[in-house]
Amino acid sequence: MGKSRAVPGLGSIKALTFDVQGTCTDFCGPLQRMGDAVNRAKGLSLDWGALSAEWRGLYRATLDAVIAGQRPFLRVDRIYRETLDTLLDRHGLGGTFDAAERDEMNRVWSRLEPWPDTVPGLARLRRRFVLSTLSNTAMSTMVAVVKHGALPFDAVLTAELARIYKPAPAVYQLAVDYLGFAPSEIMMVACHKYDLAAARAFGMRTAFVTRPLEFGPGESPDVAPEDWFDVFAEDFLDLADALGA
Amino acid sequence: MGKSRAVPGLGSIKALTFDVQGTCTDFCGPLQRMGDAVNRAKGLSLDWGALSAEWRGLYRATLDAVIAGQRPFLRVDRIYRETLDTLLDRHGLGGTFDAAERDEMNRVWSRLEPWPDTVPGLARLRRRFVLSTLSNTAMSTMVAVVKHGALPFDAVLTAELARIYKPAPAVYQLAVDYLGFAPSEIMMVACHKYDLAAARAFGMRTAFVTRPLEFGPGESPDVAPEDWFDVFAEDFLDLADALGA
Repeated sequence: MGKSRAVPGLGSIKALTFDVQGTCTDFCGPLQRMGDAVNRAKGLSLDWGALSAEWRGLYRATLDAVIAGQRPFLRVDRIYRETLDTLLDRHGLGGTFDAAERDEMNRVWSRLEPWPDTVPGLARLRRRFVLSTLSNTAMSTMVAVVKHGALPFDAVLTAELARIYKPAPAVYQLAVDYLGFAPSEIMMVACHKYDLAAARAFGMRTAFVTRPLEFGPGESPDVAPEDWFDVFAEDFLDLADALGA
Repeated sequence: MGKSRAVPGLGSIKALTFDVQGTCTDFCGPLQRMGDAVNRAKGLSLDWGALSAEWRGLYRATLDAVIAGQRPFLRVDRIYRETLDTLLDRHGLGGTFDAAERDEMNRVWSRLEPWPDTVPGLARLRRRFVLSTLSNTAMSTMVAVVKHGALPFDAVLTAELARIYKPAPAVYQLAVDYLGFAPSEIMMVACHKYDLAAARAFGMRTAFVTRPLEFGPGESPDVAPEDWFDVFAEDFLDLADALGA
């Protein structure tokens, strides 16, 4: 991994907005632990790594349908809940889990775990910048994740407030309206290039943070640098170094 | 002052929502310091205690007009800015301050100072409850106040998200929708009875916190207990005691 490479002109940055699922937190670990608990409770030997990947794929397809206007706005927690039903039906597990058990399984998305550098990195960055979430997650899920991980943000903003999802510009506009800074004074931090590309098109600065373990140890997400990133950082501590925080 | 008097049934509370201006923070001190600085800079000897009270009265009248539907929704920071113009004109000071100076004067509402018990009280309460602002202030002003005072909230919610003001039920509904709890699981904390009366009518629990110095040392705000408060507390430390936090 290369060291962070800060570019000139970052002195005007006042606020950092963060993608959360993947960028600030690990979801694979919590999903695996949820799956292990379910297998034990039900005497099953399901492969929850594969099931989780399939669940996330179903979620992504529904989210994309909302973004494309093919479906009305639906909160992320309800998309996950609906696609969990689909997932279980597909695998002949429709009769194995009642509604309360499915609700509890779905709450795994509120128990995401911060990466080891997340809290110390945010604490350093917070001394210098206003920090906010800018996630596609539901507001109540995001508040639960922030509380669960004791993530030191100054504000919690999610796409639910715009009733449309990233990469729609209306989501990035939330940061302008509710944090009170111009786009050029705000830096979007994410481990996903589509998110940063949209933030950049909106006029925000961008920081890519590598999360090579986002999809688990066996996967290889795209963590290659791009020449249009303002900052490329290995983790939040490296980001704090790059921004002088 | 009496000690706090907790009532039974508070064990179901999951989240506390806080009025901020007055309840969490002092505005008289910052207004007085702003006025002193203005007097020095301009060689004036204006009575900023009296001017501030008049400014707040003009603000309240405009806010009430918005609540009554006589004016379209206008953000609190813009109401203060508009009524500052009115105030200065009334006192023959229209030519004394340019727009940039007025903008700077208006930013006093972003520099409110936490009461001495506010941060330690919130820190204790946060270990047990989800804490959120629920203020009439603009979101960007609230984020600035939270940042300025290092107030340890889990979420920042303000009436701007509902585009109507307390005591309208839609503002209390924000806490239900965005924190994810039922009204009966949420306790509104304020030093203003109208706010708690509306929260109670909405189904929330209520905690009154006395702020006898809200309007300065010479004033006597209504800090008398009422039998319908769930908790009556002298300050946030007393509130933490009452809630076992």
